[in-house]
Amino acid sequence: MTSVSETRQDHDDRNLRKVQNTQNAQAARDVPGDASDHAPRPALSRRRLLGTVSAAGATGLALGAAAGATGYAARRPDPPTALTTLGTGSVPFEGAHQPGITTPMHARGHLIAFDLAPGAGRKEAAALLRRWSASARAIMAGEPAGGGDTGVALDAGPSSLTVTFGFGRSFFDRTDLTDRRPAALDPLPAFSSDHLDARRSDGDLWIQIGSDDALVAFHALRALQKDAGTAARVRWQMNGFNRSPGATPHPMTARNLMGQVDGTGNPKPSEPDFDRRIFVPAKPAAGTPAWMAGGSYAVVRRIRMLLDDWEKLPLAKQEQVIGRHKSDGSPLTGGKETSELDLDRTGPDGRLVVPANAHARISAPEANGGAAMLRRPFSFHDGIGPDGTPDAGLLFICWQADPLKGFVPVQRKLDRGDALSAFIRHEASGLFAVPGGAGPGEYVGQRLLES
Amino acid sequence: MTSVSETRQDHDDRNLRKVQNTQNAQAARDVPGDASDHAPRPALSRRRLLGTVSAAGATGLALGAAAGATGYAARRPDPPTALTTLGTGSVPFEGAHQPGITTPMHARGHLIAFDLAPGAGRKEAAALLRRWSASARAIMAGEPAGGGDTGVALDAGPSSLTVTFGFGRSFFDRTDLTDRRPAALDPLPAFSSDHLDARRSDGDLWIQIGSDDALVAFHALRALQKDAGTAARVRWQMNGFNRSPGATPHPMTARNLMGQVDGTGNPKPSEPDFDRRIFVPAKPAAGTPAWMAGGSYAVVRRIRMLLDDWEKLPLAKQEQVIGRHKSDGSPLTGGKETSELDLDRTGPDGRLVVPANAHARISAPEANGGAAMLRRPFSFHDGIGPDGTPDAGLLFICWQADPLKGFVPVQRKLDRGDALSAFIRHEASGLFAVPGGAGPGEYVGQRLLES
Repeated sequence: MTSVSETRQDHDDRNLRKVQNTQNAQAARDVPGDASDHAPRPALSRRRLLGTVSAAGATGLALGAAAGATGYAARRPDPPTALTTLGTGSVPFEGAHQPGITTPMHARGHLIAFDLAPGAGRKEAAALLRRWSASARAIMAGEPAGGGDTGVALDAGPSSLTVTFGFGRSFFDRTDLTDRRPAALDPLPAFSSDHLDARRSDGDLWIQIGSDDALVAFHALRALQKDAGTAARVRWQMNGFNRSPGATPHPMTARNLMGQVDGTGNPKPSEPDFDRRIFVPAKPAAGTPAWMAGGSYAVVRRIRMLLDDWEKLPLAKQEQVIGRHKSDGSPLTGGKETSELDLDRTGPDGRLVVPANAHARISAPEANGGAAMLRRPFSFHDGIGPDGTPDAGLLFICWQADPLKGFVPVQRKLDRGDALSAFIRHEASGLFAVPGGAGPGEYVGQRLLES
Repeated sequence: MTSVSETRQDHDDRNLRKVQNTQNAQAARDVPGDASDHAPRPALSRRRLLGTVSAAGATGLALGAAAGATGYAARRPDPPTALTTLGTGSVPFEGAHQPGITTPMHARGHLIAFDLAPGAGRKEAAALLRRWSASARAIMAGEPAGGGDTGVALDAGPSSLTVTFGFGRSFFDRTDLTDRRPAALDPLPAFSSDHLDARRSDGDLWIQIGSDDALVAFHALRALQKDAGTAARVRWQMNGFNRSPGATPHPMTARNLMGQVDGTGNPKPSEPDFDRRIFVPAKPAAGTPAWMAGGSYAVVRRIRMLLDDWEKLPLAKQEQVIGRHKSDGSPLTGGKETSELDLDRTGPDGRLVVPANAHARISAPEANGGAAMLRRPFSFHDGIGPDGTPDAGLLFICWQADPLKGFVPVQRKLDRGDALSAFIRHEASGLFAVPGGAGPGEYVGQRLLES
């Protein structure tokens, strides 16, 4: 442990050395990748990091330095050197697809929907998307937002910030672009278990912000809100979170606030049909507008969890509801998390081991004609609701090339017979067309708004 | 970058090796410390980590392994090895002082206040504090909470979790312990700028939860709520956050949501009078009840920031309001963040460089008879309020041996003439007596409730 009598100068000196070591480590990781690969990568960050990059290699020092780490009151202790890579991770703004779709789940997120202001049309929308893209491009690289940065992200690296923009169905009426509206934006069907609040649903424009640092995410939210100016008004806004990087030693599939491993069946980019299922092709099929090339559709649901009820249920009952073991997400029919469910197996009592109404059975891709969506949610917790129960649950966000082949058929089946539905409540819903990523000098949505 | 065609088994194998490396690194850091030192330290964490500890040393591999890190859809990428220390950090429950006071600021926090249920008195309160201490002792060590753990923290290490318990003034009436109530719990004076909501203020019992992982913090919140059973009812609950460990390369003083460096003047444990100012002595002076030995007093204020107004103010005006530079927190009279303010210096126009109503001038310890409090806040952001402005600001928490020598004199001065007061609003307030830490086998508050 560092002596508490250490001087501030000693302390600063030691940290500077660590920053240098870290930069070297990052240089070693900075190998070229596909521009459409939105995994975080090392990048130049804000001014605190600039000027401290050293060319000398000393990777072996990293954990030695960690041995000297300690804390002092109300300050974060010197992080082990490699911990500082959290801040320096950055995700490219440009690419075939927008960031924030295949980017690993973020520790913090904000969702915000806007409606165009009365009188604002296509011209104002184009100017707004241009401003938004300029800001996103800057802050995702760790640069200040234009026009009076709030300073909230100063000192921090980009912390893998992503900003993702989408258009709601109503946007196309407001901008006289109805002829370019994808059929995939037709309203989602009503589900019998919906308890939707229209004021927190839909919207002309939607932005998803994600970062591994809460202040970086908040900074982005405020910058983009400011950019809206008089062109658009906030319709709704929600905050979410996931596990912090490093809290688990494995890159575990996420857990949700019910304690369930959640996301096991997600398609993987390594699967040959991943792109086809999640993204509109570079040459869209007939009937899909050309401006959606490389795009995707996001279904957003605020799913309240009735945690007081859920937590009263004994573990064995919870596992029957889900069809998987809580401890590791493995099917009740055995194996490990990624093992396939044996949907036909019966127990000694002759009953199905994975019950007929188990969530995992009903939502299994094989039970839904291979329907595939990429779920990339945030948990939310907005304190205690007016009814005294926790206002907590899942900001469910799923991505697919076609909602009618992804979310809709699965939700239809869940709506009819999912044992989990007694413990959740869909409180808000949105469906957004998320265009492909911007090219150099381009803004997101330009191909819709200017072609 | 790892090839996306890597098999799951390859992936797991590589991670297992990394866990082993990390454990070795932690073993190197695990040096004995003062039991009252609540800086996080390595510890055994949950079952995923158990069984993977290797005795072989291979610290030099850490950053080499990081060079192979990448991500795949909707999963965190393999973190650089040392990143996994975030989860394994743990803070001891026992000690002269409770944890969560001098512990470095946490990325996530929950505050929750309870009132004893009608009919519940000293006996029920003692049983409740016993349950709470048992749970805190377990979950701070990464063990499950008793009686039906929700599973939300499974897979994660303790992530530097702390749980801190306090008693409000009303607690002593409810438990017939008025004769043991410290005079320091006398109600705070009313301040002219207060806009306090009684429903979100005060409370018989108060718990502060902090962790560097959001799910670990939420898990603790639910476990402690469950422990309350029929003995106590939630009065109010708030959520907060700070920068993530590693987002900044330096252990910077925190920034708040106004973008200001906040906490520069905090007393440091290395200062000779730190303990005297922050903690009640082991042998309390006459007039202070013996059960408060090693304790402290927490003042909690929900301070809403009027960010729409603040962000419209040009940078130079913001700096006049604060008296410091926004970029690095240095005084307007020059130097670096920790330099003293030159309160008498005038500029070429003959006016004070640090204006008479600047926040830093009025709150300076030297301007307040050496009043000292340890500020350890969280930011909060509860979305957009009914008035359309961000419901965001600071969960101000300050710690002191005597509120009449810490918070009260400083707030009195700020209340009379702080330029910052036009941009903030105190919306809720609490004052809690936080007893000393538990000894082996003891529960927090036992010396009050059983002696």
